Amino acid sequence: MSKKCVALLSGGIDSTVLMYSLIEDYEVYPLTIGYGQRHKKEVFAARNVCEARGDWLLKRWKYLDLGNLRFVLPSALTGVGEVPSGKYNEETMSQTVVPNRNMIFLSIAAGYAEGIEANYVAYAAHTEDHYLYSDTRPEFAVTCDLAIEQGTGGKVRLLTPFISVSKSDIITFGKTFTVPFKKTWSCYQGGDVHCGTCSTCIERRQAFKLARVEDPTEYIAERL
Amino acid sequence: MSKKCVALLSGGIDSTVLMYSLIEDYEVYPLTIGYGQRHKKEVFAARNVCEARGDWLLKRWKYLDLGNLRFVLPSALTGVGEVPSGKYNEETMSQTVVPNRNMIFLSIAAGYAEGIEANYVAYAAHTEDHYLYSDTRPEFAVTCDLAIEQGTGGKVRLLTPFISVSKSDIITFGKTFTVPFKKTWSCYQGGDVHCGTCSTCIERRQAFKLARVEDPTEYIAERL
Repeated sequence: MSKKCVALLSGGIDSTVLMYSLIEDYEVYPLTIGYGQRHKKEVFAARNVCEARGDWLLKRWKYLDLGNLRFVLPSALTGVGEVPSGKYNEETMSQTVVPNRNMIFLSIAAGYAEGIEANYVAYAAHTEDHYLYSDTRPEFAVTCDLAIEQGTGGKVRLLTPFISVSKSDIITFGKTFTVPFKKTWSCYQGGDVHCGTCSTCIERRQAFKLARVEDPTEYIAERL
Repeated sequence: MSKKCVALLSGGIDSTVLMYSLIEDYEVYPLTIGYGQRHKKEVFAARNVCEARGDWLLKRWKYLDLGNLRFVLPSALTGVGEVPSGKYNEETMSQTVVPNRNMIFLSIAAGYAEGIEANYVAYAAHTEDHYLYSDTRPEFAVTCDLAIEQGTGGKVRLLTPFISVSKSDIITFGKTFTVPFKKTWSCYQGGDVHCGTCSTCIERRQAFKLARVEDPTEYIAERL
């Protein structure tokens, strides 16, 4: 139980389920990185899912505000243009790509892990991460693991247990750890409740349906 | 001449020479990243070496302040403890390691490159980067190149032309591009002039000597 692990936590379903499941076997250090994204609700969600698991976890949670990243990473998510609505096609999806975001997050998490002598960084990439997000693919995870191992002199490795798991299976898995799904956040819009119509909201709703798990989320658009 | 390249520029000798040499063949976009380091003189040096090459380059120069990184990357360079003096041994050198710094910088530069449709990121790692800095080694550069290629969907590649070149050869090479060495900055201490006795100052002095190029640097400690 002394294996330390930095868990990248966005406040969404996938990273929250991953964190809850890792707590069984690791000493987990949640890390949330702000990159100037407009959906700040994510950060509160990250905080809240830690708190829900226990004050000890909330105390370990770290929020790193790198809002200036938006000046070099233009994207609809960081305020350049509007967030597209509806099921995404290639063009609208590409507007939500934050260039190389996951490699940036993984490398920072690895540096943090090395500093606190944690040997692992956990990252919740899964099968349904869209093909346009090239930095969520299995081959990228393998290469990134090697880069992190080399970059930290063999001290840190990457864990991606969901790399071949679907979002609905993640939800089913999360139920066994009583993950507070209602406290997680997916929506790319900056609203107070989930819009229900942006790409990630649609994926969220469909995943609950597929998993046959009750969706506790409040959506502005009640029906798909 | 339409090949765009983001050049990571610290304001030191190596990255400055690299940038000056790339200007011959690429449309260069210099990027300097602050990570809460105590030697802020570096940032001014980066600015000044751009200005010295022309206002057009200064206009393209981007400074990205990610000072909050110091909260997750403890190191003598970011204010945790003192910067050691003298020729480094393994212990003192390790205090100046900023965990995984180069992978963090490279991934950010790659994201920036993707956003401005540049196909290259240039990075001045060279043979004398100390063995303790594991993220300056050739095998790391190869892996990182692949991670960047995959993370950006094949849009960005890494250039490391100095990976097998010594610092003194970089200085010799820089002379042919009339690099303003006096404007570059190496010292890890936070002073107004180079201390002359910290690890990087010693390396700087020795490299000029080896290259038989006059060292225009003002040092507090006049002799080694």
